Amino acid sequence: MPRRFAVLGTGALGGFYGAKLQKAGHEVHFLVHSDYAHVRRQGLAITSKDGNFTLPEVNAYHSAADMPQCDVALIALKTTNNHLVPAMLPHVCAEKGTIVFLQNGFGEEERIAPVAGARKIIAGLCFICAEKTGPGAVLHTDYGYVRFAEYTGNGAPAGVTAACRNLVDDFRMAGIDADCQNDYLLARWRKLVWNIPFNGLSVVLNANTLQIISDSRSRRLVWSLMEEVVTGAAACGKTIPAPFIQEMITATEKMAPYFPSMKHDYDAGREMEIVSMYGNPLAAVKQKNMTLPKIQTLYDDLRTLENQNIGSS
Amino acid sequence: MPRRFAVLGTGALGGFYGAKLQKAGHEVHFLVHSDYAHVRRQGLAITSKDGNFTLPEVNAYHSAADMPQCDVALIALKTTNNHLVPAMLPHVCAEKGTIVFLQNGFGEEERIAPVAGARKIIAGLCFICAEKTGPGAVLHTDYGYVRFAEYTGNGAPAGVTAACRNLVDDFRMAGIDADCQNDYLLARWRKLVWNIPFNGLSVVLNANTLQIISDSRSRRLVWSLMEEVVTGAAACGKTIPAPFIQEMITATEKMAPYFPSMKHDYDAGREMEIVSMYGNPLAAVKQKNMTLPKIQTLYDDLRTLENQNIGSS
Repeated sequence: MPRRFAVLGTGALGGFYGAKLQKAGHEVHFLVHSDYAHVRRQGLAITSKDGNFTLPEVNAYHSAADMPQCDVALIALKTTNNHLVPAMLPHVCAEKGTIVFLQNGFGEEERIAPVAGARKIIAGLCFICAEKTGPGAVLHTDYGYVRFAEYTGNGAPAGVTAACRNLVDDFRMAGIDADCQNDYLLARWRKLVWNIPFNGLSVVLNANTLQIISDSRSRRLVWSLMEEVVTGAAACGKTIPAPFIQEMITATEKMAPYFPSMKHDYDAGREMEIVSMYGNPLAAVKQKNMTLPKIQTLYDDLRTLENQNIGSS
Repeated sequence: MPRRFAVLGTGALGGFYGAKLQKAGHEVHFLVHSDYAHVRRQGLAITSKDGNFTLPEVNAYHSAADMPQCDVALIALKTTNNHLVPAMLPHVCAEKGTIVFLQNGFGEEERIAPVAGARKIIAGLCFICAEKTGPGAVLHTDYGYVRFAEYTGNGAPAGVTAACRNLVDDFRMAGIDADCQNDYLLARWRKLVWNIPFNGLSVVLNANTLQIISDSRSRRLVWSLMEEVVTGAAACGKTIPAPFIQEMITATEKMAPYFPSMKHDYDAGREMEIVSMYGNPLAAVKQKNMTLPKIQTLYDDLRTLENQNIGSS
């Protein structure tokens, strides 16, 4: 039966997944920042490899305080705005509802847990190539599936939970490939295997995925950064099998050349998701008395480039 | 008594030191590449913090084969052209003469040794801020001293040798601060402590020395790269005391903001001295079964950026 969804952040991911859910019959409420006036008037336009569609009318809000409590809150903000979530939560998510982090990065579930009350917390890992191309307009070029995994306070696997299964059902009914993972922390680490090299190097090397993977030096650097992610995961008790690195390389070779979101943020002079994607995993590993020097180097490069770029150093 | 000098490569360093030696009464022969016609006609013009001067007439050559055998051959090419030196040597340097590498980088003395015969091989480490500003024109903005140290085949200190003392005398008489070091390999490693972070980061971060040192993140990265150089030196049996890092940081803070030579090369689309400055020390350390992951990361970044820049990947 249809559920009520809040979409916090109507960028590429929030816009795409929220629109698909609304199209499938769910009641969806969108928190919209810069595009509010446009979306209120003209709705959302999705250009997708799976079929284009428009939603001329959507429930758009400029403030979370005006939104109704929903069964599911899909957090699709940039992680740099996650500090706003605790104040939004009572407005947008029922007390026994579900919070889903449709974000990259690491450690965001831990940060919301203290204020989540009885709400379930789910990691929603999006494997999708999509970008916002204009106000209320999303272009979806490749992939699209979502892996859900329920958060546990101690890092142990939650197994396949009811909250996860319900999300998988809703997303699949909306035409989105989805599955349920046992272990949210392992799932987060696995996602970092790709995100850590390609997001950062696209900025530092001013190159897209194909360029990065085609040059023998940067390809080797990608490989060794991925190895460090696997090392970091192991330090945190999560085993990623070695062949996974080759799988990620092969998947990237098959992908249409792509500038990851961090590169778009950098080029636009916006804050990058450096803390969530690099700082938090580095901190987690440091707690285990281990260092990841190549990732640390990339992190320091990115922080410096961001300070120059935004001019706030 | 005046000696006969060959200057191989009349860029910023070769032009500056060669001109100072000629002005002091030595017979100097300049190998000039791109500026040959200009220098042959108009000589050299030095703009220096220590006093400007011009040499309207210099001995300029377009080919080393036309040059006379000299007492001292000052190698001031880019290290990327050092493969040309063996063929030049019989023409430009007497059989009992002295070869001086007025270059940054690492491992170049080892490479010339097999063809040097009875010639002495000297590392000449230049601490100078200078750049070529036009044909035959050098701008010298800061520092200027040279540290000479004689090469030994086994990496052991040569002590203060006669060949070194002669060079120190000649340079000092020409108004160039100079001294003699016991240990060429230690001197090379010490120079890398500054060169490895600042040359590479100026390219990767598109920043000058002051910008790099002023941002807390890149300053920390500089520090950890310097620590890796010290670690590499130790692996090769050379001890650099820990306070040396702070000295280098302090010296950089006092320096006029400066783009190192690698940044000039990158911006001009020229080959960078990556192999000599990064590849060779990394290889030396690898032979000791050690890795320097942050330097390796910077090396991989630079090689990738160079391939993109020159378009020869």
